[in-house]
Amino acid sequence: MKLLEDKIVNEGKIYPGNILKVDCFLNHLIDIRLYKEIGREFYDKFKNEGINKILTIESSGIGIACITAEYFDCPVLFAKKSPSKNIGNNVYSASVASFTRSVTNNVYVSSEYLSSSDKVLIIDDFLAVGNAVKGLIDIIKQAGATAVGAGIVIEKGFQGGGDELRNNGFRVESLAIIDRMTDEGEITFRKQ
Amino acid sequence: MKLLEDKIVNEGKIYPGNILKVDCFLNHLIDIRLYKEIGREFYDKFKNEGINKILTIESSGIGIACITAEYFDCPVLFAKKSPSKNIGNNVYSASVASFTRSVTNNVYVSSEYLSSSDKVLIIDDFLAVGNAVKGLIDIIKQAGATAVGAGIVIEKGFQGGGDELRNNGFRVESLAIIDRMTDEGEITFRKQ
Repeated sequence: MKLLEDKIVNEGKIYPGNILKVDCFLNHLIDIRLYKEIGREFYDKFKNEGINKILTIESSGIGIACITAEYFDCPVLFAKKSPSKNIGNNVYSASVASFTRSVTNNVYVSSEYLSSSDKVLIIDDFLAVGNAVKGLIDIIKQAGATAVGAGIVIEKGFQGGGDELRNNGFRVESLAIIDRMTDEGEITFRKQ
Repeated sequence: MKLLEDKIVNEGKIYPGNILKVDCFLNHLIDIRLYKEIGREFYDKFKNEGINKILTIESSGIGIACITAEYFDCPVLFAKKSPSKNIGNNVYSASVASFTRSVTNNVYVSSEYLSSSDKVLIIDDFLAVGNAVKGLIDIIKQAGATAVGAGIVIEKGFQGGGDELRNNGFRVESLAIIDRMTDEGEITFRKQ
């Protein structure tokens, strides 16, 4: 997605440790016009798959998932990183290590909101080693539902998680895949 | 907002300790059509205020803020509950106690994304004692920006936070205000 790649190059910042900071448009300050283009793009890619639910993970995935859900006209379900007082006892959970935060969280979804008839699209802002997507696939499988694929805004291709999922037959559509990123700020995108 | 009050009555559940569970449409599973009606309603109420930025707090506020921002055609900024590796050092922060989670978090906003010329609308899913809104107002003030008001989906009127803010001259628009809620499931809405 040309618009997104341009934004990454022009407005993103690279920090040591393979950190790409895009919080001026993607995951702290949110460019809503960009989100709409992202949602439209995910819809184009997955519109023929009978998707009836979008699953994401708090926090940065929620906004993208909601805008995308407008195109699919379907509900969003977001996995929670801590069980709140009112989530109830019947939950699916999975363990997810965060690359940018260096912590491992269990994530939770109320079992009453995922059923075996659901065809679920996973949405997230970043994919690096793929832990979040794997955790969400795990949760979808626990419900006996179908994980149709994942729509990712930025994939760090060089960290391998996306290709590992694809090699296992799981459909991952990333709007920008970074195959190389240097501390000097050079970014090489995968041709798609 | 009639549609919202009906959803609360028909689909919400009350748990001891003044907990209203509406996670089947508002803050776990998300009814996107409802979010669009909510966004439209906030826009109707605040459209003449010159709002150029929406501020919310992770996680449940983000989706509502994003859908609302489509109507205002403005960016969303969300306060983070923990500083990630890449938020940077220049932050505004405020202390916010969560009613449903029984914890106090510092919340953070990068100072580069709020400026003194901003006219900011605060959006959140719930308002009880008002800690989140007060924290966000504090952050907006630290930036020298203008807090135009707050758009809240569900206000627990009986907990007093909304009226305290109004009595201090701050504009709070809540789409449903619950003035009374019993453990037996009775809900009384404030006439607006």
